[in-house]
Amino acid sequence: MRTQVVIIGAGPAGLLLSHLLGLDGVDSVLIERQSAEHVQSRIRAGILEAGTVEVLRDAGVGERLGAEALRHRGIYLQWPGHREHVDFVDLIGRSVSVYGQTEVTKDLMAARERADRPVFYGASQVELHGVDTDRPHVTFVDADGQAHRIEAQVIAGCDGHHGPSRQALPAALRQTWTRDYPFAWLGVLAEVPPSTDELIYAWHRDGFAMHSMRSSTISRFYLQVRPGEDPAEWPDERIWTALATRLGAHDGGWQLTTGPITEKSVLPMRSFVATPLRHGRLFLAGDAGHIVPPTGAKGLNLAVADVVLLHRALVAWLLDGKPELAESYSDTALRRVWRCTHFSWWMTTMLHRHGDDFDARLQLAQLDAVRTSTAAATELAQNYAGLPIGC
Amino acid sequence: MRTQVVIIGAGPAGLLLSHLLGLDGVDSVLIERQSAEHVQSRIRAGILEAGTVEVLRDAGVGERLGAEALRHRGIYLQWPGHREHVDFVDLIGRSVSVYGQTEVTKDLMAARERADRPVFYGASQVELHGVDTDRPHVTFVDADGQAHRIEAQVIAGCDGHHGPSRQALPAALRQTWTRDYPFAWLGVLAEVPPSTDELIYAWHRDGFAMHSMRSSTISRFYLQVRPGEDPAEWPDERIWTALATRLGAHDGGWQLTTGPITEKSVLPMRSFVATPLRHGRLFLAGDAGHIVPPTGAKGLNLAVADVVLLHRALVAWLLDGKPELAESYSDTALRRVWRCTHFSWWMTTMLHRHGDDFDARLQLAQLDAVRTSTAAATELAQNYAGLPIGC
Repeated sequence: MRTQVVIIGAGPAGLLLSHLLGLDGVDSVLIERQSAEHVQSRIRAGILEAGTVEVLRDAGVGERLGAEALRHRGIYLQWPGHREHVDFVDLIGRSVSVYGQTEVTKDLMAARERADRPVFYGASQVELHGVDTDRPHVTFVDADGQAHRIEAQVIAGCDGHHGPSRQALPAALRQTWTRDYPFAWLGVLAEVPPSTDELIYAWHRDGFAMHSMRSSTISRFYLQVRPGEDPAEWPDERIWTALATRLGAHDGGWQLTTGPITEKSVLPMRSFVATPLRHGRLFLAGDAGHIVPPTGAKGLNLAVADVVLLHRALVAWLLDGKPELAESYSDTALRRVWRCTHFSWWMTTMLHRHGDDFDARLQLAQLDAVRTSTAAATELAQNYAGLPIGC
Repeated sequence: MRTQVVIIGAGPAGLLLSHLLGLDGVDSVLIERQSAEHVQSRIRAGILEAGTVEVLRDAGVGERLGAEALRHRGIYLQWPGHREHVDFVDLIGRSVSVYGQTEVTKDLMAARERADRPVFYGASQVELHGVDTDRPHVTFVDADGQAHRIEAQVIAGCDGHHGPSRQALPAALRQTWTRDYPFAWLGVLAEVPPSTDELIYAWHRDGFAMHSMRSSTISRFYLQVRPGEDPAEWPDERIWTALATRLGAHDGGWQLTTGPITEKSVLPMRSFVATPLRHGRLFLAGDAGHIVPPTGAKGLNLAVADVVLLHRALVAWLLDGKPELAESYSDTALRRVWRCTHFSWWMTTMLHRHGDDFDARLQLAQLDAVRTSTAAATELAQNYAGLPIGC
C-alpha cells in the first residue's frame, strides 16, 4: 500500500493533519493503536485558544463547535482576599472557548468518515522504517491480525508521549528535557451546573483548586494532591469540602453547588520536550514531541499549532517541491513549544503549593502583580488565549 | 538628651529620613556604628529609579546628581544570539540614573552638615528600650567612650541587616523569610571606560555576567561564581577572559576594553524579608527589614521608598496627631517590598545558571518572551524603573 503521508496516531493531532492535507488533495493513511470507541471516550482538556477555533472553523469542522462551545472572556484568579477576573477580551481582544477535546475528536472523526479516508484502528506492532531515506515505510498488524506495509513520502508521528514515532529518531540526535512536578491533580467530573460563569484558578494554603466546566450541566473540578495519590482517599464528601474551602474563601457570598460525582482520577503533572521534531522524512507533532502540565490548558492547542505548521510545510514540499518549511519545521515549532512550556510551568508553579514559605510569598506577589499591572495581566492573556502560530 | 525621632543607622536610609523630617521641622538624632569615612566608602549599587531621583531632587539634594548622573533609557538583555535593548523610555516613559550609592550618601551627609543635625558616628553598645511604651529611648556609647541616653517619640531602625533594631521587635511577633541563592557575584571595579552605553545583563552557559559602570572612566563588572568563592581564584587575566566570553558572544563586532582592576570581592546573593516593619514606636526601613539580591538593582531604591512612606507617616502622626499612616506603614511598605522581592528573585533566577537543563530552557524561553512580547518587556520596565511608592 502506498500513500503520500502516513500518519501514526488518530487523536486530534493526527485527525486534523489528515483532514487539512485532504483539503489540499494530499493523501494520507491513519494508523491508531486504540479502537475508535476508546479514542472518542478519552477525556482531556476543554479550553480552545482563539487561534485553534479559527483553524477548526477554516477547515470546515467548526460548525458544532460554533453552536455548542461556551465562549469565555477570560478566567478568574483567586487567592486569599481576592477573586480577580482577567478579561482577555478587554486586554487583547481575544477570547477562549470551552469545548471538550473529546468533542473536537468526534467532529474530526465525522469529517474523516465523510471524506472516506483510510484509517486502521486497533493496530499493533507499529514500526517505522527508513525515516532518513527517500522511501520511508510503516509496518503494523491490523485489528484482524493481518500484517501491512505502507510506503509513503513522509511519516507524521502524532502518536502521543508513548508512541513509537519519537523512538524512531536516532538516539544520538535525540535530546529530551523533563520536569516532574511534586504534586498531581485529582480530576473530578460532576453532574452539577457550574457555580461560576468562567474558570476559577485558585491558590490556597491547602493547595491549588480549579473550577472548570464541560457544559451548562456538567462541571469539572481539580484539586492539588500528592503524586500517585489513591482517588479512594477522596470520598465525595471530602472532595466537596475541600473544593468549598479552597474555592470559596474569597468572600461570604459565593456558594459551590454540589451533586453526583461521576468520575475521579489522579493526573500526574509533567513537562517534557524532545528535539528535534523532524529527522529525514519523519515529523513529530503534539504529545509525541512535548507534553505540558494542564494548568495553562496548552496541550491540545499546542498540538493544533504543530499540525498547522506541519500541514503548511508538507503542502509546500510535496505539492510545490519547496522543502524550506519542512527543513525549518522543527525550529519553528519548537520556538512556540518552549514559550508554551514556559507559560505552563509558570502558571503551574504560581498556583500550586510547593517549596517553602518564601515560595508561597513569591506566588502571592506574582498574583498581586497580575492584579495591579496591566502589562502582567496582558502577558498572561496573550499566552492563555494563544500566541500566534509560527511566531 | 531628647529628640522627636532617634534614627539608628546613618546610611542613605537614615540620612534621607533625617533630612526629610528636618524639612518639615521634625527633630532627629542619628546614631551610626561606623565612622563617617567608612560610611562614605562603602561601594554599593548605582542604579536609581526615576522615583528615587525625584525624591532626592524634591528634597533639595539632587543638584550634583542632576549634573553627574548618567541617564539610561533602559538595559541590554543578552543571551546566545541576542543582545536586546529594553527601552524603558519607549515602553513606559521613564528612565533610570546611574549614580553610585556612595555619591547619594555623600550628598546627604553634606546636607546634614549644612543643617547641623546631630549625628554620633562610631557608636557602640546601641540598645533600644521601651519600643512598645510611650517613652522609647536608645542607649549607646559614643566614639569617645561616653555613655548616652536619648529619649524620643519614635525610633527609626535604618541600621541594615545586622543592626540591633530588628532584634528589638518581640520574638513572638517577628516573622522572617530567607532565600539563599546557590551562586554569588564576583564584583570587579576597573579603571577603564565602559564598553557599552547602558548596562548589559548577560545569560551565558558559563554563568551570568554583567557590565555596569560608575562613570565615563570607571567600569563595574560582575561574574556569577560559587558562593564563598575566593577572589584569589580570579587573577585579572581570568576575569577579562571570562567577561569577554560571557559578554561578547552575541556577535563578532563588539569589543570589551580591558584595563587595571582596582577591586575584587565576592558578594553573596540573598532574599530576606522580616515582618512587621513596625511595632509600637519602632519602625524599620531599608535593609533592616529586607534585603534583595542585587540583580534588579532594588536595594537602595527600596530603602528610599520605605523612607518616603515612613516620613509621611511620622509627619502626620507627630505634627498633625494623625496615627493612621503610622499604623498602616508596615502593611503599605510590605506590599511594595514583596513586589520588589519577587522582581529581584525573577531577574536573578532568569539570568543565573542553576538547576538543570530544563531550567536553562525556561530561562531562554522567558528571555524570548521579553524579546517578542511588549507586555513582558513593559512589566520588566515597570519594575526596573520603579513601581509607584505606596501602591
